[in-house]
Amino acid sequence: MTRQTAFDDLITLLGQRATRSKPELDQHGRSESHFPAMPPEMVTYPESTDEVAAIVRICASHGVPVIGYGAGTSLEGQAQAPQGGCCVDFRLMNRVLRINAQDMDVIVQPGLTREALNAELRATGLFFPVDPGANASLGGMASTRASGTTAVRYGTMRDNVLGLEVVLADGRIIRTGTRARKSAAGYDLTALFVGAEGTLGLITELTLRLQGQPEATTAAICGFTDMAQAVGAVTETIQMGLPMARIEFMDAASVAAVNAWSGTDIPLVPHLMVEFHGSDSGARAQAETFGQIVADHGGTGFDWATRAEDRTKLWAMRHNAYYAIKAARPGSVALVTDICVPISHLAKAVSRTQEDIAASGIEGPILGHVGDGNFHAILLYDDQNPAEVATAKALSHRMVTRALEMGGTATGEHGIGLGKLDYMQAEHGAGWDVMQSLKAALDPANIMNPGKMLRQG
Amino acid sequence: MTRQTAFDDLITLLGQRATRSKPELDQHGRSESHFPAMPPEMVTYPESTDEVAAIVRICASHGVPVIGYGAGTSLEGQAQAPQGGCCVDFRLMNRVLRINAQDMDVIVQPGLTREALNAELRATGLFFPVDPGANASLGGMASTRASGTTAVRYGTMRDNVLGLEVVLADGRIIRTGTRARKSAAGYDLTALFVGAEGTLGLITELTLRLQGQPEATTAAICGFTDMAQAVGAVTETIQMGLPMARIEFMDAASVAAVNAWSGTDIPLVPHLMVEFHGSDSGARAQAETFGQIVADHGGTGFDWATRAEDRTKLWAMRHNAYYAIKAARPGSVALVTDICVPISHLAKAVSRTQEDIAASGIEGPILGHVGDGNFHAILLYDDQNPAEVATAKALSHRMVTRALEMGGTATGEHGIGLGKLDYMQAEHGAGWDVMQSLKAALDPANIMNPGKMLRQG
Repeated sequence: MTRQTAFDDLITLLGQRATRSKPELDQHGRSESHFPAMPPEMVTYPESTDEVAAIVRICASHGVPVIGYGAGTSLEGQAQAPQGGCCVDFRLMNRVLRINAQDMDVIVQPGLTREALNAELRATGLFFPVDPGANASLGGMASTRASGTTAVRYGTMRDNVLGLEVVLADGRIIRTGTRARKSAAGYDLTALFVGAEGTLGLITELTLRLQGQPEATTAAICGFTDMAQAVGAVTETIQMGLPMARIEFMDAASVAAVNAWSGTDIPLVPHLMVEFHGSDSGARAQAETFGQIVADHGGTGFDWATRAEDRTKLWAMRHNAYYAIKAARPGSVALVTDICVPISHLAKAVSRTQEDIAASGIEGPILGHVGDGNFHAILLYDDQNPAEVATAKALSHRMVTRALEMGGTATGEHGIGLGKLDYMQAEHGAGWDVMQSLKAALDPANIMNPGKMLRQG
Repeated sequence: MTRQTAFDDLITLLGQRATRSKPELDQHGRSESHFPAMPPEMVTYPESTDEVAAIVRICASHGVPVIGYGAGTSLEGQAQAPQGGCCVDFRLMNRVLRINAQDMDVIVQPGLTREALNAELRATGLFFPVDPGANASLGGMASTRASGTTAVRYGTMRDNVLGLEVVLADGRIIRTGTRARKSAAGYDLTALFVGAEGTLGLITELTLRLQGQPEATTAAICGFTDMAQAVGAVTETIQMGLPMARIEFMDAASVAAVNAWSGTDIPLVPHLMVEFHGSDSGARAQAETFGQIVADHGGTGFDWATRAEDRTKLWAMRHNAYYAIKAARPGSVALVTDICVPISHLAKAVSRTQEDIAASGIEGPILGHVGDGNFHAILLYDDQNPAEVATAKALSHRMVTRALEMGGTATGEHGIGLGKLDYMQAEHGAGWDVMQSLKAALDPANIMNPGKMLRQG
């Protein structure tokens, strides 16, 4: 059996850092979301780019699938192994290689998590802003084009990766981008690999843009009687050019779950959570202007958190909302949808979704990154109850279909993986064929993360 | 002759909007920069995407090169036709198709110029920020990944194109991106076509991000005794997170040329020109903070222009610097180099270049977008004097080689075209082979802008 030969060769290469132990295979076949387990046949733990290249060459010569693995926090099954094969877990490649403080960039290995990076950066006065909530690995964040709460100000991984080192499907090692802030030199290979979910190659090094830690930060939470008011306030703020660092939405159901989880007593109406970064006077002026806009749009219960500990509590509340919501129905499974629409359609997209959920009989609190037009419903269902499974899937399908009809996208930040494959044709049409051509050009044998993103079969 | 058949078919398709008149061929074979004329064999003026697709299909079936043409302002020969063929001039496809004010985006045809777009946007309170100086077409700006004075705040075309309609080499029409602000749905095809210089397809429609017109704008000019001081001031400003909208550098030689051209009497030392956008109080506070930073770094002659007419004069001076410098040596040809380095290397890159130029015997004022680490030398030479031609080329070569050694790029914003082809291998290594594979996948017969960007022969 030719796969067995590959696995033998990998053990020869890596010794105990190549394993077929069942607990490790199972752990790497699980997902944070609702997908059934799909374990790989081997898990490898490379320590260098050269080892990654050697792994890929061995797999390539025996037609063994290669699946990259970071922190395992992806939500669409990106790191699962539906066709078996070799999982490449980057946990041992987790170092900061070089901080260039004056250039405000950093070179890191892909297994480093964003929290570990920011801990290392603390003394430099710099930080890496992309914050998807989970303590994801930076290689995984690049591969899934992650974003999160701060994208409205600092952009997504698309905007914050200056360059990459990538191992291709044939084991070649390439470098994309430079440390220059911009370039017009040829095709944008960096952007091609960011968001490719490991289907074109494995990221083995990243050069990331950093930001200066703001002199001052202000954060606030405020309530609205409906979503349209909240969106109106956000739209006006963006058009005025007020640089919000974060602007998050939680519906009343999310607030209820957060209250139960955190012991808070936030009123049960839709809320915005906002943060401004700037100089002392700048952040204060922005906050005051925002306060006026909120009042003009009927916002209430405005509460500024200028102390660091209050802000930390505020954002911990937001980041824990997923767990708070899951805890609201113990034992349930969560289907976390993720759509993004032009902001002019956001209020309607959210209210239609709320109507659908209310009529469905299952629970589905909504929260999202309102400045980007991106929101999630966390659909809770009993996976032993076929009717509830069908209901959750139908709700998610309606949300995605509606997003596409509104000129939006099937996923703002969670990616395609296994979960959104069925929408690629509808979203991209002939563009999906172009993606297929690119895939065939760089991975003709389809060994890189097969079963994801591209047309199957 | 098979090309003749294609040209006949194009005349049948387009009537008088397909021409082989010598003056029109010559006009489309010229370049703004130093390249000799390379005219196409036919110029076409399509009025719709379907006509563009029909043109490409005719050319594809007869192996005729297809070269896109916008405003003809590219600086590396991107729109020239070294292998003849059919020029597709987009001047008749120059409409604003839809302004989505609430979403702050606009859908335009590729032949629209940036100034015409901003004129149409004026009443909406929005503007399109990318400003390469020349009144370029938006399709051309996307194709060359243009940027310019405002990239430090608003990014390059890479950051400001949300989606595209593209006619591929076989005449298929695809759409990339959506009107959502972000997406994680598949490969980033938008980024693949932005900067591809028409070698993968022709852009026939663009969805662009817009910005709110700032409530207040402040601009200033100030002198420094040397480049290192100026860069120090800029670096500190960026690290503090002060959002400069523009930050431009002119060396003493550029200042001299500008003085002669504009009748000004700016002191003959290196200067920074800066602009801030924000609320009334915000822009003022930023300006004051910047003033302090400048003083700390030895800046002098600080002069704020808060009145719109003074600012217009200031930026007209900067935008006319190219013509002012060319006029300083009448009859000379200008080789406009364009490199970009990590900002920590900028002062050294500029001073080494100045030393090289001083020793060379030809003139070459330097200016650039200092916030990005991007600068230009405008090398003036007599193209009838082989020694001067060789000197200019050697200077440019040393600048580019040094930029690559410093971890930078061969071109920050002017692109590859014909002029930077020789540096692709050095900058990208095996990555250039990957570009070749992508090109072969999407344009196997190499009809789209042949002779540019990719490996030749």
